Amino acid sequence: MSDASDASLEDAADLLAARYREPTRPTPAHWSAVLDTMLSHRSVRGFLPSTVPAATLDLVLAAASSAPTSSNLQTWSVVVVEDPARKARLARLAAGQKFIEQSPTLLVWLADLARLEALAAARQQTVEGIHYLELLLVAVIDAALAAQNAVVALESLGLGSVYVGAMRNDPLGVAAELGLPKRVFPVFGLSIGFPDPSISTGIKPRLPPAAVVHREQYSAAAQPRAIAEYDARMSAFQAEQKMGPEIWTEKVINRVRTPASLSGRDRMREVLAKLGFELR
Amino acid sequence: MSDASDASLEDAADLLAARYREPTRPTPAHWSAVLDTMLSHRSVRGFLPSTVPAATLDLVLAAASSAPTSSNLQTWSVVVVEDPARKARLARLAAGQKFIEQSPTLLVWLADLARLEALAAARQQTVEGIHYLELLLVAVIDAALAAQNAVVALESLGLGSVYVGAMRNDPLGVAAELGLPKRVFPVFGLSIGFPDPSISTGIKPRLPPAAVVHREQYSAAAQPRAIAEYDARMSAFQAEQKMGPEIWTEKVINRVRTPASLSGRDRMREVLAKLGFELR
Repeated sequence: MSDASDASLEDAADLLAARYREPTRPTPAHWSAVLDTMLSHRSVRGFLPSTVPAATLDLVLAAASSAPTSSNLQTWSVVVVEDPARKARLARLAAGQKFIEQSPTLLVWLADLARLEALAAARQQTVEGIHYLELLLVAVIDAALAAQNAVVALESLGLGSVYVGAMRNDPLGVAAELGLPKRVFPVFGLSIGFPDPSISTGIKPRLPPAAVVHREQYSAAAQPRAIAEYDARMSAFQAEQKMGPEIWTEKVINRVRTPASLSGRDRMREVLAKLGFELR
Repeated sequence: MSDASDASLEDAADLLAARYREPTRPTPAHWSAVLDTMLSHRSVRGFLPSTVPAATLDLVLAAASSAPTSSNLQTWSVVVVEDPARKARLARLAAGQKFIEQSPTLLVWLADLARLEALAAARQQTVEGIHYLELLLVAVIDAALAAQNAVVALESLGLGSVYVGAMRNDPLGVAAELGLPKRVFPVFGLSIGFPDPSISTGIKPRLPPAAVVHREQYSAAAQPRAIAEYDARMSAFQAEQKMGPEIWTEKVINRVRTPASLSGRDRMREVLAKLGFELR
């Protein structure tokens, strides 16, 4: 195990306290530079204009490729978008979020079953399994594991990122823009770049372990109290960040209250069918 | 950016060369302890009997909680399974893989829409959005991002892990064993523990960037050559590891050739319906 030589244990206690907003969080016995990076995570929505050096992107994508992948199928791909005009068009497809245009590079992570299909076709074989919902899950998970390695790798090199789930608001538009073949689905975007140091953001608190971590079997018994505490902690965080007051519970309920709350993503089954995912 | 003081740049070039099995991989200009951990990744299937200290697990789960989550919905949970009898029963549901029983702890990562539903129900509200395929994707992605942080955090502390996709062979059996409520789906397992040092495994090569990374638009033009190179590199890796010869392309085609190749996961739609996912 690593010890205090890797990263300051005092910082460790502070970072853990910030993540859970529990002031009594004890200093851990072990720590690592990886934990330091992960516990320090903040999504970045304000970027400097500096481009991401090609060599840095290569390293980050090597980290992505190093993530585990189901049965080594490697059913993911990524499109690196740096052309400002294309980035602007993709931003319009993704709720017009400003940081997409402002960041120098947009990575679009793909669930890619076309590669397997092409391999089989080149050998006059078919791969009927790719038409099942299971393979969409495999490919989405592969893409997510790779992307999350990229996120942490970027932060370790002084860069920042923010996921763009709104890339799923109009997957057909994204597919047309990126020239995606059938059986390739844009899972999410990731805007990356150097964080604007004039914008400081705090560490966003997360649900306490009592709400998320179950022992041996699932139990929701501790959730009401844990979530009430979390609502209070999030309100305090919002106030500190000079953001409008909001109750987490109310916000997340509103986010999924109706099909219309899903920003077009209530049509995902139909959209996936058009992209060539039969979801048997 | 970090520099050579963080981790040896010589190791960096070796690790990059091993991951892509391209002997000409140049020494990078920048490096970090995070990249060192990620590029060193190997899945671990041989564990020492030592248990995972509770404080270590707490840190690893704090890293998981620090991962980004879509709209801060936090639609994931995890069940920590340490009871040997339960672990053995779960192993039987997951293709009888020996490492599940051998490892001291099995984490079962859940796509959890029940928490949102319970929050709404407590306020006499409904959340119709959770019944859409989009929300299953959100929750699966949330679980994957959290789990991948846990994987890297574990490795940074000297532990190891292996994902258990076979937890999806019989999700209804897993749900019964773990007492999962409706609208909670076991996405995958993760067996964790201290690696048995007597079992050494090499760094598994991944597809070259030419097969995975696209610039501005998707292009499969470079794939045939890149994949032919990869097949040769994987064959060399297998020989080094004293594993039976196999051609990657043939192996992955066989893995998805027919519905029967999916080890029961061709019934995923029906299974998800029974777990309360309408997938509208």
